[in-house]
Amino acid sequence: MSNAQYVLTLSCQNRPGIVAAVTTYLFEHGADIREAQQFDDTETGKFFARIAFDLAAGSSISVLREGFAGIAELYKMNYAINDHSTPRRVLLLVSKFDHCLADLLYRWRIGELDMTPTAIVSNHSIENYAGLDFGGLPFHHMPISKATKMEQEAQIWELVKETKSELVVLARYMQVLSDALTQKLSGRCINIHHSFLPGFKGAKPYHQAHGRGVKLIGATAHYVTSDLDEGPIIEQDVERISHADTPDDLVRKGRDIERRVLARAVRYHLEDRVILNGSKTVVFAS
Amino acid sequence: MSNAQYVLTLSCQNRPGIVAAVTTYLFEHGADIREAQQFDDTETGKFFARIAFDLAAGSSISVLREGFAGIAELYKMNYAINDHSTPRRVLLLVSKFDHCLADLLYRWRIGELDMTPTAIVSNHSIENYAGLDFGGLPFHHMPISKATKMEQEAQIWELVKETKSELVVLARYMQVLSDALTQKLSGRCINIHHSFLPGFKGAKPYHQAHGRGVKLIGATAHYVTSDLDEGPIIEQDVERISHADTPDDLVRKGRDIERRVLARAVRYHLEDRVILNGSKTVVFAS
Amino acid sequence: MSNAQYVLTLSCQNRPGIVAAVTTYLFEHGADIREAQQFDDTETGKFFARIAFDLAAGSSISVLREGFAGIAELYKMNYAINDHSTPRRVLLLVSKFDHCLADLLYRWRIGELDMTPTAIVSNHSIENYAGLDFGGLPFHHMPISKATKMEQEAQIWELVKETKSELVVLARYMQVLSDALTQKLSGRCINIHHSFLPGFKGAKPYHQAHGRGVKLIGATAHYVTSDLDEGPIIEQDVERISHADTPDDLVRKGRDIERRVLARAVRYHLEDRVILNGSKTVVFAS
Amino acid sequence: MSNAQYVLTLSCQNRPGIVAAVTTYLFEHGADIREAQQFDDTETGKFFARIAFDLAAGSSISVLREGFAGIAELYKMNYAINDHSTPRRVLLLVSKFDHCLADLLYRWRIGELDMTPTAIVSNHSIENYAGLDFGGLPFHHMPISKATKMEQEAQIWELVKETKSELVVLARYMQVLSDALTQKLSGRCINIHHSFLPGFKGAKPYHQAHGRGVKLIGATAHYVTSDLDEGPIIEQDVERISHADTPDDLVRKGRDIERRVLARAVRYHLEDRVILNGSKTVVFAS
Repeated sequence: MSNAQYVLTLSCQNRPGIVAAVTTYLFEHGADIREAQQFDDTETGKFFARIAFDLAAGSSISVLREGFAGIAELYKMNYAINDHSTPRRVLLLVSKFDHCLADLLYRWRIGELDMTPTAIVSNHSIENYAGLDFGGLPFHHMPISKATKMEQEAQIWELVKETKSELVVLARYMQVLSDALTQKLSGRCINIHHSFLPGFKGAKPYHQAHGRGVKLIGATAHYVTSDLDEGPIIEQDVERISHADTPDDLVRKGRDIERRVLARAVRYHLEDRVILNGSKTVVFAS
Repeated sequence: MSNAQYVLTLSCQNRPGIVAAVTTYLFEHGADIREAQQFDDTETGKFFARIAFDLAAGSSISVLREGFAGIAELYKMNYAINDHSTPRRVLLLVSKFDHCLADLLYRWRIGELDMTPTAIVSNHSIENYAGLDFGGLPFHHMPISKATKMEQEAQIWELVKETKSELVVLARYMQVLSDALTQKLSGRCINIHHSFLPGFKGAKPYHQAHGRGVKLIGATAHYVTSDLDEGPIIEQDVERISHADTPDDLVRKGRDIERRVLARAVRYHLEDRVILNGSKTVVFAS
Repeated sequence: MSNAQYVLTLSCQNRPGIVAAVTTYLFEHGADIREAQQFDDTETGKFFARIAFDLAAGSSISVLREGFAGIAELYKMNYAINDHSTPRRVLLLVSKFDHCLADLLYRWRIGELDMTPTAIVSNHSIENYAGLDFGGLPFHHMPISKATKMEQEAQIWELVKETKSELVVLARYMQVLSDALTQKLSGRCINIHHSFLPGFKGAKPYHQAHGRGVKLIGATAHYVTSDLDEGPIIEQDVERISHADTPDDLVRKGRDIERRVLARAVRYHLEDRVILNGSKTVVFAS
Repeated sequence: MSNAQYVLTLSCQNRPGIVAAVTTYLFEHGADIREAQQFDDTETGKFFARIAFDLAAGSSISVLREGFAGIAELYKMNYAINDHSTPRRVLLLVSKFDHCLADLLYRWRIGELDMTPTAIVSNHSIENYAGLDFGGLPFHHMPISKATKMEQEAQIWELVKETKSELVVLARYMQVLSDALTQKLSGRCINIHHSFLPGFKGAKPYHQAHGRGVKLIGATAHYVTSDLDEGPIIEQDVERISHADTPDDLVRKGRDIERRVLARAVRYHLEDRVILNGSKTVVFAS
């Protein structure tokens, strides 16, 4: 994996010559390609690409960007050219269990995740997190009840705007977001579900898994959509269990799966490795 | 893993002293324990054990068996003492895709699976299996249609009885068994489902998985019950896939998962390593 | 997995009747067995068992212990009966990289690891760990050089004794212990090596792995012996890599493997699930 | 994964503009790119690419090939443009254990591996393979002894030439090839070693693994070089084992690993997904 300054991601209807057009344009504008991945979805005829590049001395990213708009129009591309010299701003939401939050904070501290967390929001009070170092981040206790859900979500949304957060991570935040908030955060809100979806949707998935007698349990990181547990899947993983594992054992083993699945999904998103493909994702993993 | 001649499996309500009672009885009757595994289901209070043993010269298995009935009655056990010097008789059913069948036959040929296959049954004709060596086993073409389902199943059942088959393996046999046949084969009919249950029940699971955009696919071996795809799970496994995998790729990768999952489940059953626990299984794997 | 108060572990030359003798004795002295596992090493003729039990009201563990000594003598057992109502005392050693330490502290904080850490020792100064919450544990900076190695190890040994530490965990402590200290800590010092041993012994294993072009990397937790990287292996795990992974990527992916492998090994040890078998281990995993 | 007719693979020193030059050339000569993967080895400055394409009606592959030579010269590329409409010819070598051979033949029969096996060579006689259907392939018994090694290898080499075999697969062929034969087959001879290299080189790796007490065993497919067990690794995989597994259990579990690792490596090679990178490989897996 290289660490190039710029990442171009694009998707469009596939046509011969796209790669040539894009790479020739980039070359002529001083881009030195570090990493390039593409995918032709032969079912839908859609084309996806991710190109990470640095810029030669004397070349200008604004000139490159301006000119690229023409190519994008020609091919009717959805695209973005992101500058990775500034880490993305990320708001972290959590409920009672803080293993995913602690893990993300740790990875941030050692420089593994290229992000700037902006704040931590919880529907539980700060006492719940005794012993967890927030790394100087502001903590916002935003309790929620049926009656106050709308207001609480308004608060969250205000905080997103105020902190200029570009990504919201539900690090075991156990409240279902409303359709309204979900739409506002479309494509930039990642949730970790503690089951190998689409098995065991809804509440208490480890207890469901135990009840069904499965031999592996898993976790799923996905973009949040208004259709609960149905958002585009970014990453999944599993671990082997046995009849001897109690629901508590599953919860324990699940913690390890959840945190690594969520961390990978967040990293892929931060590195512009995920492109939406309808209700699915293209993940140019590394 | 040892290869003892006898295997005792038992389940009953847990009570202090069971292990002492059983092992003392076995010791006093000449049993040399090679492998012993137990499991206390703390939720249901049930106790499960598998004890593999050989018999000292001069000891008699029929005497041992007779006396054990008393202990079993005392503790209200479900139990069996099986002699593994004779391989179990197994009927193999298959439909169009023969990768699981070919794999089971190969493992039988090299002595990995301790079984005596009795016959192969297919709803397709023998031409479908050109190039597959049946190892001298009789092949029965039993076509099926909605109209003839009852008769076809009667044929299968006759063959089970005639061949004294103790286990029926649905090695990608793609017909749903009727409740009647399912009940006759209760606890001794193993199916391989080509998904990581409970996700993607029903038809074309790989296409379902592709449509949903999951990042891992799997297979599930389970005992057949009248509740389709809901039988007690014996074994499962998964493999990683990506957005670049077409449904055909999933089918290809799935073949490898299916055959190893089914082979493990069959081996566990043949070695008396599986005990039913309601709608779940206890698997004393090795 | 049950959480019984007492755990009996034993190993001895195998003889018929051991299980009956032990379980009958336990039953007669009020033990209610929660979990029992055994292993017959057919190569060496040695027998290993782990029995977790609670004691019925009115029964006495000291009476049980006293009487058991007789059985143990009869069968020439190595054995221990440990009371798990008091968590074991654990000294944690670390060098520059603190991901394993942070992970162990986190698991301790949420109650996943049943231990009482006594102190943290590092050959680096406390500034190295900015942002890591030690949970109130004393931190001891014990720098080391060739010239001061003996003195530094004497300090460590003093601290082990002073803190009554029963286990020492080398959580990426990158100094080779002397033979003298190794012997003092025999069977109670666990190290994490960042490779899938026996591949890539010695320094910079991720760079070695990258150089060799392997397709999976791993980590190994083992008891420390005077023979470097040759101690009895407790746990290992791996992850898939590709040609595109730089040594830095391997280090990053390796952190995740190391911390879960070490955490599992420590848990197995704390729960008396590991029994030494010459240069190998018997691990009654759960 | 697409199934394009042509695959271009190339490696050269990296320079800005390579991708643009190649893709523009291909586009202008009627190539419709189905799959493209590239890798910049930042350590060595080398660039690797695999481009699978179909040709538009009216375009000529010989014209495309001719013109490409110029680009290749300019960039000093090692390259190949292979036509995949004709399956590659493959010679299969085997010794006593035939699980890998049986597996490759099965995958060939069902069309999973795009190859034309030319013959089977064994140092054991045909009786050893009773019950294995060779699919009509000629079988050559070529016994070997210290005294006849040179002659036997000459026979093999004659057969390679006579059958126009482009790839030689050592499917558990347990003879070490001489330097001379190794060099003749450079880059087109794949071996499966039954360990997770570099651990357990040489003979009886499963017994070595058992002796060392590792917790996972593996297998490695690699190109054969004169340096035994040191050839460029194409694929590896592992499975978990425990203290309870005897060497025989490892051999049994290992068979499953070996056959899937070898089958993957052969498929990658047949699909031109493997490019040599010094003593390592770039594998554009799918």
